[in-house]
Amino acid sequence: MTIADRWLLPDGMDEVLPPQAARMEELRRALLDLYHRWGYDQVMPPPVEFLDSLLTGTGTDLELQTFKLTDQLTGRMMGVSADVTPQVARMDAHSLHRQGPVRLCYCTNVLRATADQHQGGRSPVQVGLELFGHAGLEADLEVLRLALGSLSAAGADEMHLALGHIGIYRSLVQAADLEPARERALFEALELKSPGEVAARVAESVEDPALAEMFLALVHLHGGPEVLEQAREAFAEAPAPVGAALDQLRELCAGVAADYPQVTLYFDLAELRGYQYHTGMMFAAYVPGYGQALAKGGRYDDTGRVFGRARPATGFSMDLKLLASLAVDEPPCDGIWAPAEEDAVLAEVVARLRQDGERVIQALPGQRTGPAEHRCNRRLVRLGEDWQVSPLA
Amino acid sequence: MTIADRWLLPDGMDEVLPPQAARMEELRRALLDLYHRWGYDQVMPPPVEFLDSLLTGTGTDLELQTFKLTDQLTGRMMGVSADVTPQVARMDAHSLHRQGPVRLCYCTNVLRATADQHQGGRSPVQVGLELFGHAGLEADLEVLRLALGSLSAAGADEMHLALGHIGIYRSLVQAADLEPARERALFEALELKSPGEVAARVAESVEDPALAEMFLALVHLHGGPEVLEQAREAFAEAPAPVGAALDQLRELCAGVAADYPQVTLYFDLAELRGYQYHTGMMFAAYVPGYGQALAKGGRYDDTGRVFGRARPATGFSMDLKLLASLAVDEPPCDGIWAPAEEDAVLAEVVARLRQDGERVIQALPGQRTGPAEHRCNRRLVRLGEDWQVSPLA
Repeated sequence: MTIADRWLLPDGMDEVLPPQAARMEELRRALLDLYHRWGYDQVMPPPVEFLDSLLTGTGTDLELQTFKLTDQLTGRMMGVSADVTPQVARMDAHSLHRQGPVRLCYCTNVLRATADQHQGGRSPVQVGLELFGHAGLEADLEVLRLALGSLSAAGADEMHLALGHIGIYRSLVQAADLEPARERALFEALELKSPGEVAARVAESVEDPALAEMFLALVHLHGGPEVLEQAREAFAEAPAPVGAALDQLRELCAGVAADYPQVTLYFDLAELRGYQYHTGMMFAAYVPGYGQALAKGGRYDDTGRVFGRARPATGFSMDLKLLASLAVDEPPCDGIWAPAEEDAVLAEVVARLRQDGERVIQALPGQRTGPAEHRCNRRLVRLGEDWQVSPLA
Repeated sequence: MTIADRWLLPDGMDEVLPPQAARMEELRRALLDLYHRWGYDQVMPPPVEFLDSLLTGTGTDLELQTFKLTDQLTGRMMGVSADVTPQVARMDAHSLHRQGPVRLCYCTNVLRATADQHQGGRSPVQVGLELFGHAGLEADLEVLRLALGSLSAAGADEMHLALGHIGIYRSLVQAADLEPARERALFEALELKSPGEVAARVAESVEDPALAEMFLALVHLHGGPEVLEQAREAFAEAPAPVGAALDQLRELCAGVAADYPQVTLYFDLAELRGYQYHTGMMFAAYVPGYGQALAKGGRYDDTGRVFGRARPATGFSMDLKLLASLAVDEPPCDGIWAPAEEDAVLAEVVARLRQDGERVIQALPGQRTGPAEHRCNRRLVRLGEDWQVSPLA
């Protein structure tokens, strides 16, 4: 093996160097502090769990994304966490088992066996929060506010919020009472957002002409808040849960517009992401210049059921690595350079400055690099018996 | 699979719940801030690397500890990082390639396939630092000071520091010019700290009577600083590097005693931990009540050579999980409880309090748990048009 081979990192398994690592650390703190101030308690899910627990109720997407390991102690299969959401649901259902609403947040490394088509990395740092135990829209709105607040904290000015509600499609499909194979075909056509394809699938599967109309309307119902008004007409005769879902979207729209007037709202009523686990509103937050969503979330009630406790749940997550790339500040040049002298007074002065929060870099004997290479803007100079901080020439 | 099975976590793969997670986060920040103030830049090594890079020059201990994964993209074997020290050496040698002394620190999850006999967990959070590019004792002393400073920051009062120097044994073995098999047998006898076993191995392998005496002395040379004086006599005729190693230990002893008079110093000249990679002084820091070292480190020059750049290196690492268990503070009860009312003034007051750094938990409609369950000591009460913070009854 040559030296060059040893440098090579696996695709999507990136190292983070200064100053980007400092930027990530700063953002990590800003986000966890924000969540703390809203009452969210931090948890740290285990990086590895038995596969049976990890993949329970999450569907095959996550299974393909999960690195598998054999536990040498038990011979059982384990998986490296690829998404902490189900782990946090387990913690709420089993480990904490608290009464009433529970607010939890996290910031942790996860691993993905294959890179998501929209995401470069296989080693994101997943940061986010979950609000368990409350089924009301107030909980969804709190989560939405915090998702937008997170992007603001990361330095985003212009934000786009795409909102959907899985209950619309789910209710229509239930009313249409389709065979599984035909439902799957319709689902795929809608996922492709292809009106022609949807029309063909509806023609062959949906008998009720009113419902057929609604499926055909669904694929066109995306755009600004006016979509909600169009939907009100299109779904006037729809099953009751469709109307309830639309009411929820309208309330969320009003709530977000009040708090974040600068956010552009976008609605897509045919959005089917996370169909296997989402149960209510779903959202994705975008920032211009990024092809992918920076925050994704929504309601996913009852994930805790497999762990013995069905609970309402709503939340969102982000990739700290991606988020930290929003701002590319140069690191501040604010250190103090100390010479490589053995001097008791100098040692005291250095210790005091550090205690006061200053960054003091003491040169090592024979060192050839100087204050500039180490981002120092001041230096300690001898003044009689004492030492004084003075600006670099 | 029953529900109880799904709760089960693999041995040593623990979740961290509130309030312990908050305690860990607090300590993480305190340590990284401490290192920052001394001029250490944070890096984040990749959680996974190709096995060839990860295990280069580190010996078989680490290989057994490393979880192996197949890269689906290339078919090559990858390993999950079990110790970030070699990764950071690669970053210094290759990725950064800076001139002069380079100070790096990190705090990151690692995974171990088997639990260390002295350590419970297989998922430690490794935190530590490395100082590259300086071969002098000043660098070792800085590292020692920061290791003890880290334990202080974690709440340790009483500390024990065990110091050794791999150069002593290495020079004696070189001078004795032993066959590999006999050297291994002698090494193992010394590792067992068994005087009888050492005497037997020395009798059969070491021809030079002066050298034989020195090996026999070595196994007894452990204890307080007086050991260094005993060693001066015992090794008066030893090869020059032995004397130099003893001089170094004396200087480190003086430096630590000056800064940390409360630290009990212990020397073990037959300490052989990390023989494969250590090249100079080695240390382990203990706190009463913990059977295992809380910080371990030392000098390990030239690890970067396999990545194309041999550099002096010294540093240490710790397990944040273990370290955070030193203090078990109850979380402070300092939140403000806000009622579940839709009121524009209330919303403004809550936002302002959060901006000022307060933790404000807003109740959700129908919520049955109250301020006490959520660690609040104050609540917002209506006062005419306005809202006021008042202590809980």
